[in-house]
Amino acid sequence: MAKLWSGRFGENSASLLDEFNASLPFDKLLYAQDIDGSIAHATMLGAQGIITPQEANTLCEGLKQVKSEIQEGKFIFDIEDEDIHMAVEKRLTQIVGDVGGKLHTARSRNDQVALDFRLYVIQSNKQITALLRQLIQTLHDLATAHTDSLMPGMTHLQHAQPINFAYHLSAYMAMFMRDFERFDSSMKRNNILPLGCAALAGTPHKVDRQHVAKLLGFDGVSLNCLDTVSDRDFALEVLFNISTMMMHISRLSEELVLWSSAEFGFVTFSDAYSTGSSIMPQKKNPDVPELLRGKSGRVFGNLMGLLTVLKGLPLAYNKDMQEDKEGVFDSVQTALISLQILIPALATLNINVSKMRAACKVGHLSATDLADYLVQKCQIPFRQAHHITGRAVALAEEDGCDLSELSIEKLKSIDERIGDEIAQCLPLEASMNARTSEGGTSTNRTKEQLDFIASWLKRA
Amino acid sequence: MAKLWSGRFGENSASLLDEFNASLPFDKLLYAQDIDGSIAHATMLGAQGIITPQEANTLCEGLKQVKSEIQEGKFIFDIEDEDIHMAVEKRLTQIVGDVGGKLHTARSRNDQVALDFRLYVIQSNKQITALLRQLIQTLHDLATAHTDSLMPGMTHLQHAQPINFAYHLSAYMAMFMRDFERFDSSMKRNNILPLGCAALAGTPHKVDRQHVAKLLGFDGVSLNCLDTVSDRDFALEVLFNISTMMMHISRLSEELVLWSSAEFGFVTFSDAYSTGSSIMPQKKNPDVPELLRGKSGRVFGNLMGLLTVLKGLPLAYNKDMQEDKEGVFDSVQTALISLQILIPALATLNINVSKMRAACKVGHLSATDLADYLVQKCQIPFRQAHHITGRAVALAEEDGCDLSELSIEKLKSIDERIGDEIAQCLPLEASMNARTSEGGTSTNRTKEQLDFIASWLKRA
Amino acid sequence: MAKLWSGRFGENSASLLDEFNASLPFDKLLYAQDIDGSIAHATMLGAQGIITPQEANTLCEGLKQVKSEIQEGKFIFDIEDEDIHMAVEKRLTQIVGDVGGKLHTARSRNDQVALDFRLYVIQSNKQITALLRQLIQTLHDLATAHTDSLMPGMTHLQHAQPINFAYHLSAYMAMFMRDFERFDSSMKRNNILPLGCAALAGTPHKVDRQHVAKLLGFDGVSLNCLDTVSDRDFALEVLFNISTMMMHISRLSEELVLWSSAEFGFVTFSDAYSTGSSIMPQKKNPDVPELLRGKSGRVFGNLMGLLTVLKGLPLAYNKDMQEDKEGVFDSVQTALISLQILIPALATLNINVSKMRAACKVGHLSATDLADYLVQKCQIPFRQAHHITGRAVALAEEDGCDLSELSIEKLKSIDERIGDEIAQCLPLEASMNARTSEGGTSTNRTKEQLDFIASWLKRA
Amino acid sequence: MAKLWSGRFGENSASLLDEFNASLPFDKLLYAQDIDGSIAHATMLGAQGIITPQEANTLCEGLKQVKSEIQEGKFIFDIEDEDIHMAVEKRLTQIVGDVGGKLHTARSRNDQVALDFRLYVIQSNKQITALLRQLIQTLHDLATAHTDSLMPGMTHLQHAQPINFAYHLSAYMAMFMRDFERFDSSMKRNNILPLGCAALAGTPHKVDRQHVAKLLGFDGVSLNCLDTVSDRDFALEVLFNISTMMMHISRLSEELVLWSSAEFGFVTFSDAYSTGSSIMPQKKNPDVPELLRGKSGRVFGNLMGLLTVLKGLPLAYNKDMQEDKEGVFDSVQTALISLQILIPALATLNINVSKMRAACKVGHLSATDLADYLVQKCQIPFRQAHHITGRAVALAEEDGCDLSELSIEKLKSIDERIGDEIAQCLPLEASMNARTSEGGTSTNRTKEQLDFIASWLKRA
Repeated sequence: MAKLWSGRFGENSASLLDEFNASLPFDKLLYAQDIDGSIAHATMLGAQGIITPQEANTLCEGLKQVKSEIQEGKFIFDIEDEDIHMAVEKRLTQIVGDVGGKLHTARSRNDQVALDFRLYVIQSNKQITALLRQLIQTLHDLATAHTDSLMPGMTHLQHAQPINFAYHLSAYMAMFMRDFERFDSSMKRNNILPLGCAALAGTPHKVDRQHVAKLLGFDGVSLNCLDTVSDRDFALEVLFNISTMMMHISRLSEELVLWSSAEFGFVTFSDAYSTGSSIMPQKKNPDVPELLRGKSGRVFGNLMGLLTVLKGLPLAYNKDMQEDKEGVFDSVQTALISLQILIPALATLNINVSKMRAACKVGHLSATDLADYLVQKCQIPFRQAHHITGRAVALAEEDGCDLSELSIEKLKSIDERIGDEIAQCLPLEASMNARTSEGGTSTNRTKEQLDFIASWLKRA
Repeated sequence: MAKLWSGRFGENSASLLDEFNASLPFDKLLYAQDIDGSIAHATMLGAQGIITPQEANTLCEGLKQVKSEIQEGKFIFDIEDEDIHMAVEKRLTQIVGDVGGKLHTARSRNDQVALDFRLYVIQSNKQITALLRQLIQTLHDLATAHTDSLMPGMTHLQHAQPINFAYHLSAYMAMFMRDFERFDSSMKRNNILPLGCAALAGTPHKVDRQHVAKLLGFDGVSLNCLDTVSDRDFALEVLFNISTMMMHISRLSEELVLWSSAEFGFVTFSDAYSTGSSIMPQKKNPDVPELLRGKSGRVFGNLMGLLTVLKGLPLAYNKDMQEDKEGVFDSVQTALISLQILIPALATLNINVSKMRAACKVGHLSATDLADYLVQKCQIPFRQAHHITGRAVALAEEDGCDLSELSIEKLKSIDERIGDEIAQCLPLEASMNARTSEGGTSTNRTKEQLDFIASWLKRA
Repeated sequence: MAKLWSGRFGENSASLLDEFNASLPFDKLLYAQDIDGSIAHATMLGAQGIITPQEANTLCEGLKQVKSEIQEGKFIFDIEDEDIHMAVEKRLTQIVGDVGGKLHTARSRNDQVALDFRLYVIQSNKQITALLRQLIQTLHDLATAHTDSLMPGMTHLQHAQPINFAYHLSAYMAMFMRDFERFDSSMKRNNILPLGCAALAGTPHKVDRQHVAKLLGFDGVSLNCLDTVSDRDFALEVLFNISTMMMHISRLSEELVLWSSAEFGFVTFSDAYSTGSSIMPQKKNPDVPELLRGKSGRVFGNLMGLLTVLKGLPLAYNKDMQEDKEGVFDSVQTALISLQILIPALATLNINVSKMRAACKVGHLSATDLADYLVQKCQIPFRQAHHITGRAVALAEEDGCDLSELSIEKLKSIDERIGDEIAQCLPLEASMNARTSEGGTSTNRTKEQLDFIASWLKRA
Repeated sequence: MAKLWSGRFGENSASLLDEFNASLPFDKLLYAQDIDGSIAHATMLGAQGIITPQEANTLCEGLKQVKSEIQEGKFIFDIEDEDIHMAVEKRLTQIVGDVGGKLHTARSRNDQVALDFRLYVIQSNKQITALLRQLIQTLHDLATAHTDSLMPGMTHLQHAQPINFAYHLSAYMAMFMRDFERFDSSMKRNNILPLGCAALAGTPHKVDRQHVAKLLGFDGVSLNCLDTVSDRDFALEVLFNISTMMMHISRLSEELVLWSSAEFGFVTFSDAYSTGSSIMPQKKNPDVPELLRGKSGRVFGNLMGLLTVLKGLPLAYNKDMQEDKEGVFDSVQTALISLQILIPALATLNINVSKMRAACKVGHLSATDLADYLVQKCQIPFRQAHHITGRAVALAEEDGCDLSELSIEKLKSIDERIGDEIAQCLPLEASMNARTSEGGTSTNRTKEQLDFIASWLKRA
C-alpha cells in the first residue's frame, strides 16, 4: 500500500522497514486515547469553522464507530498502517469517505502521539493512586488489630528494640503515602494539552487549543510547541514514581519472604497466594513477594531506558522517541498488577503473633532501656551508659540468658548505681511502650499514627 | 582507639575494616549540617530539662567552636572516628569535657545521618533552583533580541519549517521551568524533620521534635520513626530531578555542538569558553557542551546506583544505606557546576544570524504552507494537499531550487487550483509568522511566551 | 484446574495469582528448546534404564508430536499451565498417557528452565554473530570503492584532518569485530549443560549428564548444581554484549543522521529505507538510524534490569529469577532486527563523494601537516610548531581562506624557516596519504586494514 | 598561564572553565602509566631517528625524575595543566629544557589517554584476578572442613533438601571462577597498543608501533586509529565484569547477613570484622556483608554511566569521553577493597555447625527422597509420587513433626506401596548423600568438586 506520506518518494519502502518502523504493534494500546483526542479535535475544528459542523459531526460519529469496532475486536490491525493514528484514520475514511482526510487538518502525528501518550500516563497515574489508596487501607486494616503485638524491631537484620507489628506496617503506609503524593503531583503538573502544536511550530489554522483542553479535561495548554512535541518529562516521572514505589514494595517483599521462612515464621501466606514445587512436595513458596521484589528490575530498567533514549536528542521530534512507549506500558502494567496482587495477598496473610513475641526474647532488646535508665535516673553521660550496658549484655551472654532475665544483683554487680526500679524498665512491653516520642512505637503513638492515616485515607 | 560502641567487643576491629567501613572521608562534607543539627538538638534538650540550660549552652558553644575549627581548616579528621558525627562529638568532648557525652542523649547516628543528609539535599535543591532561575534569565536575555531571527526548525534533524531563534530558546526555558518546579516541589515535600527517631522506634526521653523542627526551618516532623530512618526518597528525588535536568542540558548541548560545527556554523563559543587541541592548531572545540552532554552519564548512573542499593532492604537501617551519599554529592556537584558553566557560556555565545537564515533556504521549509494553502483556500482535503505538495517539492528538487523559489507557473502546472496569492505564503518570514496558534512560532506568539516567562521569573 | 504441585494445598490459587505468576505468556518462546531438552533427557533416562527403552521412545515420539502441533499453530496455550514446561508435559500426557508423568523423573523445573534459557541464549549468540559477519561484509563491500574518497576526519565534531571514507568505515568494522569476538567467547564459555541438577542439589537417580550434554551439543556439564540453577551469568553476558554492540550502532547511527542532514549532505538513504512526514511533504527522514540509536535505551535498560533482579538473591532458585527472560528476549530480538535492517540500509546507501570532499576544504584540515613539517624539516620542537601553525590558521581566517590556500609568501611571513616544499604538504590528498603509520589513514594503510578484515571474514 | 593549545585564541579561558574542563584532579592517578608510556614512546622515537638517541635518553631520564617526584609527594599538581599528560610534560620541560617539547612528536593526547587508561584497566584486571584467586582459595580452605556439615539447602528461602556447607561454598567458588575467567579473557582481548594513532588518523612520522608495544608488554597494535582513539570497550568490559562479580558478592553477602541473624544463627563474624551500635549496646552488626551488598549499587551505576556517555557519540574523540575514567576508577577501587575485606572476613568466620544441622530438621527436607523412593522402588510415575508425598507432608504437619520422624505405619497409611526400606531413605545424612549425580551434593561429589577447584587454583 502507498504510505500517506509517499508523494515525493520514487520507491516503496522495504517490508522489513515497515516492521522495524511501525509502532502499531504496541501503540494500538492507545486507541481509546487516540480516538477521544480526535473527537475533541474534530469538534473544535467544527466550532472554529475550519470544517463545517456537519463534517465535524460526521467525523465524530465515524470515530465512535471505529472505537466500537476496536472494543468489539472487529478491527483488523495492519502493520502497513505504521501506527494507531494512521490505522484509525484509514478506517475512518473507509467509513465516512473523503471527509476523513480533513481530520488531520491543523495537527501532526507528532502532537497526536504526544496527546495520546500523555492521556495514557495521566490516566495511569490515576489508576495507580486508586490502588495505592486501597493498599494503604489494607495495611491499615491489618494494623488495627496489632497495635500491641510485639515484634523485634531490627537494624542490620539484628534484633534491636521491641516494637509492635502495627507500627512496622505503619512505616510502609508512610512510604506508600509519599508514593501517592508523587503520582498525584506529577499528574497535576503534566495535565496540560499538547495538541495544537502540529509538527513542531504551531499551525496557521485558527484553532482553539483552550477548547480542546476543556473537552479533554486538561487544566491548560502547553507553552511552546517545539518543547511540547519533544517533551517526555511526564513519562520519565511516571517511570521514576513507579520505580520508587516498586523499591518500597521490594523492601516489604523482602520482609515477607524472610518472615515466611522456617527460621522467622512470623507470617504464613494463604494457600490462595502461595505456590508449590514441581519436585519438592513439602514446599510452600512465597512466590508473590519474590516476584514483586524481582519486578523492581524491569521498572528500574525502563527508567534507565528512557533516560538513555532522550539523552542528547536535538529538538524537536526524532524517531528515537518512538522508543518511549513500550517501557512505560510495561512499567504501568507492572505497577497495576503488582498492587492488585499485593492487596489481597496482604489481606489474607496470617500473622503468627506468638512467634513474633517469642523472637523478642532473643537479642537483649531492652539494652537501650538500660542505657536510657542509666542516663535518666543515674545522671550518667550517655557514652558511659552505653559502655556499662555493653558489659551487662556480655554478662547475659555468658550466662546464656536475655538481658531482661538477668537478676538485679548481677546488674548491680556491673554498676552499683543501678537501682531496683530497673525491674520496671526491662520487660518487653514496657520497653516498647516507653518509646513515647512523636513518631515512636508506643501503642499510643502508633494509634495516633493510624488515626492520622485514617483521616488521610478519607481525604485521598 | 577504642570505638564508642566497643563495650561488648572482645577484639579490636581490623584496620582494613576501619577503612572499609568509615564514611568520614565523604560525609565530612556534612559537617555544617551535622553541627547545626546538634546545636538545635542540644537547645531542645536544655529547654526540655533533659539536660540543664548550662549544659545546653556549653554544648552549643563547644559545637560552634568545632564548626569554626573545621571552617578554618584546623580540624584534623581521623578515619578511626568512622563518621562526621563521631568526629564532631569527639572533638566536642575534648573541648567541653565529659558533658560532651550528653549530646547524644535521645538520638542515634541513624536519625542524625538522616537529618544531616536531608538538610544537605534540601539546601542543594535551593542552590539548584537559584541557578536554574539564572539560566532561564540568561536564555530569556538571549532570546529577546532574536524573536525574528529565522532558523530552520527541524525534526529528525531535517529542515522542517522556519521558526525564530527566540522560539527555539523558549522551548528550553519551558524545560528548565519544569525542572525548577520539580526541585521546588521535592524540597517542600521532604522538608520534614527526621531527628527524634533515635535508632528506629523513638525514644523514652521527653523530647520536643516540633521545637527542633522550628529551629532548623522544617515544616513538620516525620510520621513514623521506623520509616524515617530508612527513608531515602528525598535522595532519589534529587537524583531523578538532576537526571532529568541534565538530560535537558544534554539536548541543548547536542544542539550547541552541532551548531558549532563547520557544517552548521549557527553559533560560535567565545574563546573564554572554548578549548584547543594539543596536536591540531586550527581546532576550536566546544568542550563545554560536550562535557555537559557527557555528564548525563554519571548522574543517570548515580540514580541507578541508589535504586539498586535500596532494592530489597528490610527495615530499618542497614549499613548498605551508607552507600547513599557519594552518588548524591556527585550529582549535586555536577548539577551545580554544569549550571554555573552553562550560564556564562550561553551569555557569551555568538549567534550567526545570517547563517541560520541562509540555512532556511535549504529543504523546502514552506512546503507545509503550500499544503495548508491548498486546504484553506482551495478546500482540498489535507491528505490530497499533502500529495500535491509532495509533487511540487519533487519538481523543485529537479529544478535545483527551493520550493519558495518555484515560479507560480510551475506551481500551477502541478495543480491548477493554485492561485496567485500563493506568492504571499511561501516566503520564509511569512511562513514563520503564519504559525499563530497558541504556543506557535510567529513572532507575536513568541513574544507572548517570553512575556509569560518574564513574569514567571519575577515570581520564582 | 489442580496444579501439579497442589498435593499439600488446602485451597486453590487465586486466579489473579495465576496471571501474575505464570511465565507461559513469554516463555512459550522457548518451546523448541524445552522439547529438544526433554527428548535428550528421555533418551538418557532410557539408556540408563531409569525408564524402559520403550517408554523413552514413547516419550520422544510424543514430544515430537507436541513440537509439530506448536509449530503448526494447533497447540492451545492455557495460562493455568503456568509455564512452557508444564504446558508441554500436560499435552504430552494427553498424547502418551500416564507414562508422560515419567518424563520429569530426575529433573526439576529449576534445571529445566536453566537448560531452555541457556540453549536459547547460545543459539541467539550464534544468530547475532552470523548477522555481525554480514554487517562487516557489507561495510567492507562499501569501503572497497572509497579508499581514496576524501572526507573530513573529525574530533569534537570539528574538522580535524582529511581521511578517506573507507577508513572511517573500517573503524566501525573494528568495533563490530570486537563485538563478534565477545558474543563468540561468551557462547563458548557458557556452553555447559545445566540439566541434571534437579531442584538444587542433584538427584539420586543414576543419570548420565555427559550423555545429555553430548546429545544437545554442549561442551561439558556444570560443576555444582546449587550454582547452576541460580546462574544467570550467561544471560547477563548476552545483555552486556548486545548493549555494547547497540552502543556502537548508536554511534554509527548518529553519524548517519548527521550525514543525512541538509548541512552535511554526505549520504542519502535509499527511498526503500527512508520515511516521510504526515504533515511536511518535503521531508525524507532517516528513521532507520534514529530508531537504531534509540534502541540503545531498551537494551541498556534490560541489562540494568537483570542486574537489579539478581542483586542480593540468596541461593538457590528464587521466583525473582523468573524476571530474567523477557528482557533477554527483547534485547535479542532488538539485536537481530537492528542488524537485519542496518545491513540493507547500508548496502543501499548513496555516498555523496563530492560533498564529503568539498567539506574537507573547510577548517584548515592540513594544519597538523604544517606543524609536522615544521618539526620534521625545520627541527622545531613540536610545541613551538603548534604555536606557529596556530598563527598561520589565524591569518587564513582573517583572509577568509583555508590554510591550504594561503600563499607561500604569507606562510613565510609567519615564520621564515618555512620553505617552498610546504606546497607539497598542504593539499588534502597529500595530507591524507601522509598518515602512513600502522593503522593510519593513508590509502595504502587503509587497504592493508581492509585486507586484514577480508581474511578475518574468511575465517569468521 | 597560556594553554599549550592557545596559539589561535584571542582570549584566555575562563577560570571556571579550567575547573570544569580539567581532568587532572582524577587522571593524576594515571601518572605511572603516563610516564611509562612516554618512556617507551621516547625510546622508540630515538630508535627510529625521529629524535636523536641523546634526546631520547634525556627525555627518559627526565621522565624517571618526574615519576620519582610524584611518588615522593614532591610534585605540585596545578589545575591549569588540565591533565596528567600536560602536567608531566610541563615538569619534564622544566627539568630537561626545550627538548621536552619533542616528546609529544607523533602522538596526541587522544592516543596518550587511550594508552594510559588501557594500561590502568589491564593492570586492574590483573589485580582483581589475583584477589579472586585468593578469595577462591579462602573459600576452598573453609569448605574442606565442612564436606559433611549438614545445612538446609533452600529455594525461595524455604527449606528444600539437605546439603552440606562445603557444597554451598562450592557454588560461590564456581561463580568466582567464572568471574576470574571473564576478567582474564577481557585482559587478553584488550592487550593491544593504542599509541601511535595520534589525534585520529595516524601520523606521518616514521614511528614503529610494534616496538612500543613490545616495550610496554602489549600483544599487538590496534587496527584502525579512528577506532582506537574512540574505543572504550575495554573500560565497559571491566565495569561489566566488576558488576557481575559484585552481584555474586551481593548474593553471598545477603546470605551472610541472613546467617548472622538471631533467627538463622548459622555463622558469627569475628569481632575484628563486626561493628557495634552507638545507641544499642547489645548489637553486633554484620556491616561488612551489608556494605558489600550495597556496593553493587555504585558499580552498576558506573556501568550504566559509561554506556550512557558513549551512546550516540560520533567519531572520533569527543570531550564527553573524559567522563570515562572516574566511574572506572571507582569501580576498580570498590572491587579491590571489597575482595580485600571479604577474604579475611570469611577466613575468620565462625561456622555454627550445630545450628545448621538443627535447621535441617525443620521443613520436611527429605520429602523429595520419599517421592524418589516411590518412583524408583515402587514404579510410580513421578507426578503421582509427588502427590502422595504432598499428602505425607500434610500428615506430618498435622502431627507436628518432621516428615523424617513420621512412623512407617503412618507412611504406609498414605500409600500401601511404601515399604520398610523407606527407613533408610529419610534420615538427613542419607538424603544428602543420596544426591550422587555429577555436580550433586553428596559428600563424595562435593569432594570431587573441591578437587577440581584445587587443581584449577594451581593453574590460575
